[in-house]
Amino acid sequence: MNSITMKLQADELIRLALQEDITSEDVSTNAVMPTAQQGTVDLIAKEDGIMAGLDVYARVFTLLDPATVVTFQVKDGDRVKPGDLIGTVTGDIRVLLSGERVALNYLQRMSGIATYTRQVADLLEGSGVTLLDTRKTTPNCRIFEKYAVRVGGGCNHRYNLSDGVLLKDNHIGAAGSITNAIQMAKAYAPFVRKIEIEVETLEQVKEAVDAGADIIMLDNMTPDTMRQAVELIDGRAQTECSGNITKENIARIREIGVDFVSSGALTHSAPILDISMKHLHAI
Amino acid sequence: MNSITMKLQADELIRLALQEDITSEDVSTNAVMPTAQQGTVDLIAKEDGIMAGLDVYARVFTLLDPATVVTFQVKDGDRVKPGDLIGTVTGDIRVLLSGERVALNYLQRMSGIATYTRQVADLLEGSGVTLLDTRKTTPNCRIFEKYAVRVGGGCNHRYNLSDGVLLKDNHIGAAGSITNAIQMAKAYAPFVRKIEIEVETLEQVKEAVDAGADIIMLDNMTPDTMRQAVELIDGRAQTECSGNITKENIARIREIGVDFVSSGALTHSAPILDISMKHLHAI
Amino acid sequence: MNSITMKLQADELIRLALQEDITSEDVSTNAVMPTAQQGTVDLIAKEDGIMAGLDVYARVFTLLDPATVVTFQVKDGDRVKPGDLIGTVTGDIRVLLSGERVALNYLQRMSGIATYTRQVADLLEGSGVTLLDTRKTTPNCRIFEKYAVRVGGGCNHRYNLSDGVLLKDNHIGAAGSITNAIQMAKAYAPFVRKIEIEVETLEQVKEAVDAGADIIMLDNMTPDTMRQAVELIDGRAQTECSGNITKENIARIREIGVDFVSSGALTHSAPILDISMKHLHAI
Amino acid sequence: MNSITMKLQADELIRLALQEDITSEDVSTNAVMPTAQQGTVDLIAKEDGIMAGLDVYARVFTLLDPATVVTFQVKDGDRVKPGDLIGTVTGDIRVLLSGERVALNYLQRMSGIATYTRQVADLLEGSGVTLLDTRKTTPNCRIFEKYAVRVGGGCNHRYNLSDGVLLKDNHIGAAGSITNAIQMAKAYAPFVRKIEIEVETLEQVKEAVDAGADIIMLDNMTPDTMRQAVELIDGRAQTECSGNITKENIARIREIGVDFVSSGALTHSAPILDISMKHLHAI
Amino acid sequence: MNSITMKLQADELIRLALQEDITSEDVSTNAVMPTAQQGTVDLIAKEDGIMAGLDVYARVFTLLDPATVVTFQVKDGDRVKPGDLIGTVTGDIRVLLSGERVALNYLQRMSGIATYTRQVADLLEGSGVTLLDTRKTTPNCRIFEKYAVRVGGGCNHRYNLSDGVLLKDNHIGAAGSITNAIQMAKAYAPFVRKIEIEVETLEQVKEAVDAGADIIMLDNMTPDTMRQAVELIDGRAQTECSGNITKENIARIREIGVDFVSSGALTHSAPILDISMKHLHAI
Amino acid sequence: MNSITMKLQADELIRLALQEDITSEDVSTNAVMPTAQQGTVDLIAKEDGIMAGLDVYARVFTLLDPATVVTFQVKDGDRVKPGDLIGTVTGDIRVLLSGERVALNYLQRMSGIATYTRQVADLLEGSGVTLLDTRKTTPNCRIFEKYAVRVGGGCNHRYNLSDGVLLKDNHIGAAGSITNAIQMAKAYAPFVRKIEIEVETLEQVKEAVDAGADIIMLDNMTPDTMRQAVELIDGRAQTECSGNITKENIARIREIGVDFVSSGALTHSAPILDISMKHLHAI
Repeated sequence: MNSITMKLQADELIRLALQEDITSEDVSTNAVMPTAQQGTVDLIAKEDGIMAGLDVYARVFTLLDPATVVTFQVKDGDRVKPGDLIGTVTGDIRVLLSGERVALNYLQRMSGIATYTRQVADLLEGSGVTLLDTRKTTPNCRIFEKYAVRVGGGCNHRYNLSDGVLLKDNHIGAAGSITNAIQMAKAYAPFVRKIEIEVETLEQVKEAVDAGADIIMLDNMTPDTMRQAVELIDGRAQTECSGNITKENIARIREIGVDFVSSGALTHSAPILDISMKHLHAI
Repeated sequence: MNSITMKLQADELIRLALQEDITSEDVSTNAVMPTAQQGTVDLIAKEDGIMAGLDVYARVFTLLDPATVVTFQVKDGDRVKPGDLIGTVTGDIRVLLSGERVALNYLQRMSGIATYTRQVADLLEGSGVTLLDTRKTTPNCRIFEKYAVRVGGGCNHRYNLSDGVLLKDNHIGAAGSITNAIQMAKAYAPFVRKIEIEVETLEQVKEAVDAGADIIMLDNMTPDTMRQAVELIDGRAQTECSGNITKENIARIREIGVDFVSSGALTHSAPILDISMKHLHAI
Repeated sequence: MNSITMKLQADELIRLALQEDITSEDVSTNAVMPTAQQGTVDLIAKEDGIMAGLDVYARVFTLLDPATVVTFQVKDGDRVKPGDLIGTVTGDIRVLLSGERVALNYLQRMSGIATYTRQVADLLEGSGVTLLDTRKTTPNCRIFEKYAVRVGGGCNHRYNLSDGVLLKDNHIGAAGSITNAIQMAKAYAPFVRKIEIEVETLEQVKEAVDAGADIIMLDNMTPDTMRQAVELIDGRAQTECSGNITKENIARIREIGVDFVSSGALTHSAPILDISMKHLHAI
Repeated sequence: MNSITMKLQADELIRLALQEDITSEDVSTNAVMPTAQQGTVDLIAKEDGIMAGLDVYARVFTLLDPATVVTFQVKDGDRVKPGDLIGTVTGDIRVLLSGERVALNYLQRMSGIATYTRQVADLLEGSGVTLLDTRKTTPNCRIFEKYAVRVGGGCNHRYNLSDGVLLKDNHIGAAGSITNAIQMAKAYAPFVRKIEIEVETLEQVKEAVDAGADIIMLDNMTPDTMRQAVELIDGRAQTECSGNITKENIARIREIGVDFVSSGALTHSAPILDISMKHLHAI
Repeated sequence: MNSITMKLQADELIRLALQEDITSEDVSTNAVMPTAQQGTVDLIAKEDGIMAGLDVYARVFTLLDPATVVTFQVKDGDRVKPGDLIGTVTGDIRVLLSGERVALNYLQRMSGIATYTRQVADLLEGSGVTLLDTRKTTPNCRIFEKYAVRVGGGCNHRYNLSDGVLLKDNHIGAAGSITNAIQMAKAYAPFVRKIEIEVETLEQVKEAVDAGADIIMLDNMTPDTMRQAVELIDGRAQTECSGNITKENIARIREIGVDFVSSGALTHSAPILDISMKHLHAI
Repeated sequence: MNSITMKLQADELIRLALQEDITSEDVSTNAVMPTAQQGTVDLIAKEDGIMAGLDVYARVFTLLDPATVVTFQVKDGDRVKPGDLIGTVTGDIRVLLSGERVALNYLQRMSGIATYTRQVADLLEGSGVTLLDTRKTTPNCRIFEKYAVRVGGGCNHRYNLSDGVLLKDNHIGAAGSITNAIQMAKAYAPFVRKIEIEVETLEQVKEAVDAGADIIMLDNMTPDTMRQAVELIDGRAQTECSGNITKENIARIREIGVDFVSSGALTHSAPILDISMKHLHAI
């Protein structure tokens, strides 16, 4: 994660997460360690997977104490296997103990998403279809989860409601027609936005292309209808396929000819990657 | 979720989540709906499961517009099946569209945790063993996730590092011995805290009991050793069993005689419960 | 300004602005009015212009006291002339006095921008060229100033660095070439972003079109070169013209054939519109 | 700007302004520069004017990355002319690009105010009349704008409603009379406040002096009446003249004999000073 | 406390105080009261004293639940005696119980300050000397404590370092002389500030008067020297006496002829006033 | 105070306190010291007492300027007498002057609490009774005040409503009986909480013990009844005695046999310890 995003967005969220875990103090640690003592601890992989969020993991400790030194043997995007040494954290043992859980909560979740995304993206390899995430992220974790998707080989759909236009059936209903909706969006949205519209029938596909949609999302169509839609569009707009895509069912999308496929499961259903901190000792 | 927790803790997090999703405005909605228009939309279950987080779901909309009316046919803890009408949201359609994703992101995650917890808790029914959560929650979602565990029939372990004492091997090492660690914790911690200590051998169990531990966590023990530990403790302390507990492996804990079993999976591995908003129409 | 943007973005900034003006209390008002007293005051135009920001003006008072009633005779976008009654504010006189300056500071600035934008946009009328703003806004006022531009008949360029891609010479330099820069942006940016690139020569124009740029910004070109560029692009990309555009010099852009012209002056040089609150009296 | 004000007030506002411009990340820059690269860029004047806000300009970059080095060839209050090198910024090129707009938005506005103030103050030189600002500042920019006024040779009127007493007609009305208003203010306000009162007639001037006003603001009086008021006051109170003062009309105030003249135009109508960042190159 | 100060300053501090006392939830109350239940409770005086902070007390409950109704039999400044019914709070019993401690912590402290201030002010009655507070307030409680001083019959010295000028020996040292310090302050400070200077000898008094000080603080002088100082000043500046003033020793100031006497003890040493909530019952 | 609590909780409160004292700038200091100048100042005890809060005192200055160096001759818990040199602060004199009041406000209050607590704790020495604080702390100062109690030899009761269970008469009433209340609390509260209950009669004591209360608070009992209660409990629960305990009346508790005695006076009635900053000089 680049350093500016860390400073402007991540730091505040990480600090909130630390305050969630430490209201007044870490009673257990402070009871037995009244003063600072230098120590070091290893970060060890316990499962096969893809690492993501090492900077976030490190930031938890340096936010608690800037003197903490965190070094890594791997980098975001690297594959690890059980027993691999991922890195070490060296500093005041009280900081190592008090920051451990928040640091791992971030790292395990982000690495879990990267690992799952990598698995799904691999199933699309060579097909020319690009894998996308969605806005189905955990509240107040989007900056971390969308980054993890990229690390895992996926691409990002819009970040939020303000930076992308996606016209769904309710928007079309309010506008009166697909054509109206697209025209209203072009007139209203900042001119650097692409206009995406969700359609369910070939007739709607046709209207959307004619009205100048930049991206057409094919919703709940059979593979066959999707194929016809892609032919009909014929390169005049980009195409996205969506709807309950998981690693179990994504392979069927490979041959349809769509440009993009989006999957909420990348962020809302990826299991965590098991990682732990071990071998803490004074130095 | 009680109303004071909503006001003091949840509101701020929900507002942050809304700002994460709406930086400047919902461009798509505002393009096609320049002015307020009243409408209503249904909240529908798409899977079997246990509902949790209905107040949070509703709060997303009333934070955007206090005039929004949200009514429910079920309550937290109720079981739903696919197609069940969970409730309806009535108000400015722009609010309904702009709040939909954040509201569902909370509700699906919380209901997913409640559903998974219910399944695990059911496996312990009649055994006298109480199911606990851990601090392995999503950063900045703990207040929601720990609540969902309770709705699903689990109980809460300590909320964070400040409100419970759990002495692990590193704390014992720093203190010099189990006995020292327990005495230091009793001297330092607010006197209303129970003192819990994590042990790995029967010898440690004995020392912990003698030193006056309130709760003894049996870590990485075989079922057999755990049984011996429980006998040795003989009611002089409460017992907790921990370590990679999931719904696949929890049954073996039933007959061991421990008082509590804690599972990080309740919050870090529960899949979301599929729920959607449908049938939006103007009124 | 729509109500969700008011709630999620504007409210916090307005509250900050009020705290900037009232550290502890309005000493003058509280000295002479120890208790609440109902009153009403008129909002009067003192110059010709276009109103923008009426909701923001009203919100200053209702944030101080939700019981304050603000009614308007005109709406955003309407033209006013000296002496016109714009609206009235009715409530606790202390609220009327304490909120006056902050409310006017917002309203005068926003209306000033709308008025200036309207003048510039009128100079482009019938030409087919769309007027755009820039990111040259007052710090912590962007949400208000970009809105005022729209009210005045302009359109918004990207909101900020996160929701639009604009590759300038330094980006091109870092990427190695225009072609590289465009390809890297397409691979990296959320796929709903259009890719805009700034060019200075016809050769660069050609490379940019061939590399698939969505928008080409013609920077510091003579009118003649711009005309050639537009011909060369021939509809394969949108075109934007930029650089010190003010109402004094914009007319020359009419006949060049570009799609868009952006002007920082709309937000950084528009003089305020003179508006005042008069005839306060108890009721 | 002194370092304590920077820490306690300015930092927070600058950070907010950066978050306004970077919601998630600078997509353009991050697309083409995946890793840090050292570079340097020049800050160049493009117009004649007075510099103000160099510390604020520098702080934008060091907030993004404390390792950024900003050096200046001039200091606040110095006069620059087109082409002058004002300073250089050296550090991670991504920081230089991502911070550029916010840094310039502050510096151009503050220098614009200092330049305009200098012009107005020069018109009063030798007259013994002191130039003052008002509370007609941009919301959430007061700390910066009032500082810029001082840099330009103006003095500050009260900072806000809490730290100065200014009794206007409505306060007088509420108190019942000028005498009452002044007495109530003396009794209520912290005793270190001077009491200022706004009057419109010579009769009111007399009552204000007799009641012990510290400062008398002559509002909307003809030059002649002002002269008579000054004579009548005869040094028993300070005098301030106010009302639509701009550089076009201020000269007429020179000979009237008032102590102070305040002008809202200093902060609400000063055009920005054109300054740009050029010659960025890797090092 | 006036409603605008409540909204802009007090609300945020009260909410922080509530979050300090309720991290996640009120466990005791929620354990036994799973749902809302209406109730009422009395607020009873247990000591003789002066009430201050009733609005703050009420706000604690209405912040938790706007439906709570708080009524008072007395108002700020009124004297109460043991057993007096001060008011009642009616609403959800959970709100009454969860807010009780924070509400009383504010009310007892504020009433304690008002009571102590009243006692000290009474000792000055008829002497023409005005009693002032200082900046020796509890961190993050100044808005409440300075208000309580006013309720108790004291007046406020400057609110903070920004809204009053008080030149002490170190300032004088830095400026080179008393005359320099006063001139520098007059040139730098917003012109509505009075200039106060702290002196220790009669020679310094003379220099301060001649240099145009508005207020002269007589520091650590004997009563006799103070008397001489007052004579020497002879009405050309206001006079303030300061230094470890408590209710035990303030009487000796009565006859000296100073205008003001300031006492840090009003805010840092006033004991709380004992008040309690009793007779809670369901309704 | 340990460094993590300083970072996560104290820093934010100290910064708020500084902003409370410096809205825009320290006018007096900045008037006479336009640029940084190195200096040093001594921190001197003026009364006998126990020091507490030295880290907080130091943090005020390093928050204003990280280059400030603060060194101490004593540490928290040490006894000082009038004239003792506690430490020195070295840095920009403007920082020393601008931070002085806030730093002393914290240090004097915390040391006052430690001093008072030490006096009370000494009266219990040898009795086996442990002295506790309460939640009667100053709003937004609890983290500081509870720490000061520990420094003075007291122990902490629960930190707030979320991390301890204390069932009072109203909770018992809501639950229907003591037995019900204890059972409901055991079922609801995180299982690491001890259950404390407040009782007034021997009958209630008996019910509470039988229902499994961990701690029994004896409220408003005569010494004699307390003695009987302790006998009746006979070690099956811990005992706490409470109610208007001050240093004047605590001795009578020594022989009763209770385990704990809590006193609100420790935090709400301790007078400040007089400490001052002296001998500032340039270096």
